[in-house]
Amino acid sequence: MHTPMPLLPRTPNVAVVGATGAVGREMLRVLEDRAFPIGRLRLFASARSAGADLPFCGTRVPVVALPAEPDRAVFEDTDLVLLAVSADLSRTLVPLARSAGAVVVDNSSAFRQDPACPLVIPEVNGAVLDALAGPAIIANPNCSTIIALVAVTPIHRAAGIERMVVSTYQAVSGAGAEAMAELESQARDFAAGRAITPQVFRTQCLFNVFSHDSTIGPDGLNEEERKLLLETRRIWDDPAVRIAATCVRVPVLRAHSEAINLTLRRPMLADEARDLLARSPGVRVVDDRAQNRFPEPIHASGADDVLVGRVREDRSQPHGLGLDLFVSGDQLRKGAALNAVQIAEWLAAGGQAAGDQDAGGTEAATTAATPPSARRAAAR
Amino acid sequence: MHTPMPLLPRTPNVAVVGATGAVGREMLRVLEDRAFPIGRLRLFASARSAGADLPFCGTRVPVVALPAEPDRAVFEDTDLVLLAVSADLSRTLVPLARSAGAVVVDNSSAFRQDPACPLVIPEVNGAVLDALAGPAIIANPNCSTIIALVAVTPIHRAAGIERMVVSTYQAVSGAGAEAMAELESQARDFAAGRAITPQVFRTQCLFNVFSHDSTIGPDGLNEEERKLLLETRRIWDDPAVRIAATCVRVPVLRAHSEAINLTLRRPMLADEARDLLARSPGVRVVDDRAQNRFPEPIHASGADDVLVGRVREDRSQPHGLGLDLFVSGDQLRKGAALNAVQIAEWLAAGGQAAGDQDAGGTEAATTAATPPSARRAAAR
Repeated sequence: MHTPMPLLPRTPNVAVVGATGAVGREMLRVLEDRAFPIGRLRLFASARSAGADLPFCGTRVPVVALPAEPDRAVFEDTDLVLLAVSADLSRTLVPLARSAGAVVVDNSSAFRQDPACPLVIPEVNGAVLDALAGPAIIANPNCSTIIALVAVTPIHRAAGIERMVVSTYQAVSGAGAEAMAELESQARDFAAGRAITPQVFRTQCLFNVFSHDSTIGPDGLNEEERKLLLETRRIWDDPAVRIAATCVRVPVLRAHSEAINLTLRRPMLADEARDLLARSPGVRVVDDRAQNRFPEPIHASGADDVLVGRVREDRSQPHGLGLDLFVSGDQLRKGAALNAVQIAEWLAAGGQAAGDQDAGGTEAATTAATPPSARRAAAR
Repeated sequence: MHTPMPLLPRTPNVAVVGATGAVGREMLRVLEDRAFPIGRLRLFASARSAGADLPFCGTRVPVVALPAEPDRAVFEDTDLVLLAVSADLSRTLVPLARSAGAVVVDNSSAFRQDPACPLVIPEVNGAVLDALAGPAIIANPNCSTIIALVAVTPIHRAAGIERMVVSTYQAVSGAGAEAMAELESQARDFAAGRAITPQVFRTQCLFNVFSHDSTIGPDGLNEEERKLLLETRRIWDDPAVRIAATCVRVPVLRAHSEAINLTLRRPMLADEARDLLARSPGVRVVDDRAQNRFPEPIHASGADDVLVGRVREDRSQPHGLGLDLFVSGDQLRKGAALNAVQIAEWLAAGGQAAGDQDAGGTEAATTAATPPSARRAAAR
């Protein structure tokens, strides 16, 4: 069996760009929790954050302001760049990181449809990383795509998913730390009897739901819905898969949920799907009909696994060809930072990272999930 | 054309049972807002509410405690009984009201599948009321069913709906006034830094979403999902219609939203559907792609119309045979109290009430909807 050469040295020098944002901060937590081996760690953010420092492995790491006109010197002597910035800024920074010889894992949408840049969820298509030779740009998929595909790919592999109808219940964290603060401050405004004045979103978050705040195309799809379709086709390498998505924000802080209706090519019953999911990496089955306990975003928050439940046959379709699921996954963690770090782990290991094939298993009565106990590392 | 005799006198004596609950209180507001002509109004509630009185048309009406073992004397000299109580209590009270000669509109699920009791949304199948002769029990459908069917029935009539995939975003009001108070108090607990302890629901509402809190059957459907299927088939008199529903609670106070994916028998494009909806009774189209303004529960709250938007072709289905919609409707109002009072209006008018055929129309940029200005009536 071919074992590819690692693309990263044993203890790479790492740069996290956008380190003070919601995803950037989560990247630091994930690197620390997973004891990712790091030579030198550098943190970058916009000039607004100049002078800040962030906690990491028991110390504080200074945040460097990105220059107004960055050049490749920013990434000199850097092996791995984790980008958690806007698509525009990614388009500026990625060529600089490449020319400095670094591997880039980019969390923005900028390179997700670029054929030269693999779009990767390690549990789903991590093997495409093994084909890389030399510095590469790897695109981290959109959060809703990652959370859906971790859950449904095992079913796709076994029974072939022909069509999905997906309705999302998306946390505000996808719009950044300011949006999370806005939701919390709206709760405080409500409690104090103050008027609620939206600033990050154009409408009130608290006690409301609203169509995803991204641009609507001429076909009526918003960007989030389009990403779910195009990214799924690319990650599965299946241009035939069909998706009808409705993406909606709900007043939840940091975990997305999705109601997913599947049309299968080959029959699979609910019990079979549940057993398969319980054996699948990155998935935890939470499906207790007697106690009415199913995935909830407050339980997914801080967890690495995508919670999957409400697994049932859809009798509105021919017997065995329809399945319904409900999933919740941490938008900042598996939906962004954790997935990016798992990609880096794969590259550092020169193949599938050891822990990533572990199945999450099943729990009938879930309690609040907690992050894996942090294995502390002397990382600098 | 046959004009049926009114089943109710011109100014009926009305009893509202469960008057102090969330739906009961809303019934009083709706009766007042619509200047429903009333001879004598009597309000009943459980012994817990004994001694209370409720505002109505500028005065306060005393609440009478239901006797522990009610008999037909409770409904003596009553023409119309509006029931907003549990299914169990409805099963006790309905025979008493019938034997007292009253017409009953029952908001519970007790009689919704009883072939002798019409299940009615006036805009959808009000005509079945014209066939009634003499005292009758009319069942008010479940809130999620009403809100979905007001929106999609015009499309069903024009293009034939073969299958629906419905994901709900349901307000806590469906679980009663205590659930609404719980959501608000959880926001206050959060703001004060206090621990959040669920009491009405088994899990936290604030900043969370969870599968609908009703019993799950052996097929994996919860009661809410089953109601949507069975009630739709009955109201449309179409046992062939197929529905895959996922019913979910969201931290919203009193308006339900639903993402609805349709499979049509005959082609209909989005523009045609939008035009049709703009002409349909009980519907207001809110579908501004440029401004990203679509139905939101905070705008549906207090409004009579069901807001409909995100009308778009679903390209995951053959051209013209798939449509997506997003709807929001006030659970307490059109989802319960308003629909019940509209049924009573139909019965009092001996046919379709005048205002009910009015189309809600379209608004590109909606602002917070307000209830119709109350036309005050000397109702007692």
